Amino acid sequence: MSVPVVSFVAKSGTGKTTLVEKLIREMKSRGHKVGALKHDAHRFEIDHEGKDSWRFTQAGADTTVVTSPEKMAMVKRYTAEPTIEETLDACFADVDIVLTEGFKRSSLPKIEIHRSECRRDLLCRGEYLDPALIAVASDEPLQIDVPLLNLDDIAALADFIEARFLR
Amino acid sequence: MSVPVVSFVAKSGTGKTTLVEKLIREMKSRGHKVGALKHDAHRFEIDHEGKDSWRFTQAGADTTVVTSPEKMAMVKRYTAEPTIEETLDACFADVDIVLTEGFKRSSLPKIEIHRSECRRDLLCRGEYLDPALIAVASDEPLQIDVPLLNLDDIAALADFIEARFLR
Repeated sequence: MSVPVVSFVAKSGTGKTTLVEKLIREMKSRGHKVGALKHDAHRFEIDHEGKDSWRFTQAGADTTVVTSPEKMAMVKRYTAEPTIEETLDACFADVDIVLTEGFKRSSLPKIEIHRSECRRDLLCRGEYLDPALIAVASDEPLQIDVPLLNLDDIAALADFIEARFLR
Repeated sequence: MSVPVVSFVAKSGTGKTTLVEKLIREMKSRGHKVGALKHDAHRFEIDHEGKDSWRFTQAGADTTVVTSPEKMAMVKRYTAEPTIEETLDACFADVDIVLTEGFKRSSLPKIEIHRSECRRDLLCRGEYLDPALIAVASDEPLQIDVPLLNLDDIAALADFIEARFLR
């Protein structure tokens, strides 16, 4: 795996997506090419306009692609879900860093997000001590064996990621 | 370019998308893995649910991917639009045939769709005799130097494509 990846994990309701969104903006503002990857266990539909690409996929196309001068969109169906490593190789060869959401059970480097309003135990420091945990982003002090970052200090989070993965 | 490609071209209003849609169904029913590719000169938005993947792209992600057990969706932004050959290589390595819509000016093998209600001259047989024209699918007889197929006979169109590209 060549592209650096950091995965944000949290209990649901912790605001993972909002944090990843803010970090994307911050990393972009620092000049990095950023990829974002999310696993959606549910069925999802793509194609906002419900237009031709949607029709092609509905008609059974295994892969549907729409290109424009600015961007491309692809929907690919598969019988066996690729591994995260395969997805990273296939989709993110041209970015500097990939921020992922979820993938709790993977061995990707992880930052766990913690909020005081959620239960105090951490996903990565429960019965299983996840060796891939590299930091915790929290809104309260915690006794923890990895760096503790301020959840609301996006710049500090970006600094940490840069120092760890982009230097 | 390793995967066979056939591009459907027509004047607007000829029902290109509907024909490609029908052909996808027909080719799938014959057991082929089918890719579909469309160029959209306009801006398009992706992500029907306006959810997390949309938020990541809006936040500036260069590439956003959502995976599920059944399919994956990717939106990639670029500063320079890839060539069609690059798109074919990157996206369609795992299908048997790609059906494209548009790409009038490419050198891809083309089938022009013609309807009697549209103007009689063909896009590929006007001032410029397009050497990539391999057939015309029409709802009326035409004097033409390439095979003439019945626009409404989807099975015959699929037979033609199979004979030409998949044997």
